[in-house]
Amino acid sequence: MSNYGLRVLEGSECADALTTQRVGRVALCLDHPVILPVVYGILDGDVVFRTAPGEKLIAAALHRTVAFEVDEYDAEDGTGWSVDLVGTAEEIVDPKELQRARALELPAWAGEVRDRYVRIRTVTVTGRAIQPDG
Amino acid sequence: MSNYGLRVLEGSECADALTTQRVGRVALCLDHPVILPVVYGILDGDVVFRTAPGEKLIAAALHRTVAFEVDEYDAEDGTGWSVDLVGTAEEIVDPKELQRARALELPAWAGEVRDRYVRIRTVTVTGRAIQPDG
Repeated sequence: MSNYGLRVLEGSECADALTTQRVGRVALCLDHPVILPVVYGILDGDVVFRTAPGEKLIAAALHRTVAFEVDEYDAEDGTGWSVDLVGTAEEIVDPKELQRARALELPAWAGEVRDRYVRIRTVTVTGRAIQPDG
Repeated sequence: MSNYGLRVLEGSECADALTTQRVGRVALCLDHPVILPVVYGILDGDVVFRTAPGEKLIAAALHRTVAFEVDEYDAEDGTGWSVDLVGTAEEIVDPKELQRARALELPAWAGEVRDRYVRIRTVTVTGRAIQPDG
């Protein structure tokens, strides 16, 4: 499907694209929309990221519907893509699942104490690519 | 101010950082949060981006409070920064302002018809940098 130079990505393309990046952005709705960058990994097709106990905005995201976005854009040739998923943010508490999340070896940004993991239970995934020729 | 290896950016640092990127992300709250990447420029300190007449999500953003985010992250050395601003999205309709927006020469992604311009009237800007040593 193409529209105004945009091509809608298939589900498998979205899944592949999600594995190519390390930093994505989580958006949640508080009094107003908030966007937070996170270092993430993929666990059973869901996005998982580390967070610190003191991260109030992430705490606010738990049990809520959040959006998660990754993109890549080449300014030279005008190509790019983005994947946007919507899901529910849950802290990982099950010991086995936590072990699997730790095995993702997500970097802790700047030596922060980020010993908690959040998983976004995917509800929908959409993606689109920008094509040079429309 | 530093906290868990994060440094809060000054207002001037946020303004400078905003000029270094070409792609940012707009988040808005509909039934759920939505994140859209946009090619943007800066006009009088506000974020301006092009959009197509048929872009329903952008149309939904008009007159609403939206968030806008840019970031840069170096996976090698674990440094990075992000700037998150909150403001009101307005279509630019004043002819003189429209002329100035066009003068930003924002690229039209992939030959799309994007002859409309949206300006985010900034309300708050925050930024943070990740430091290697905490």
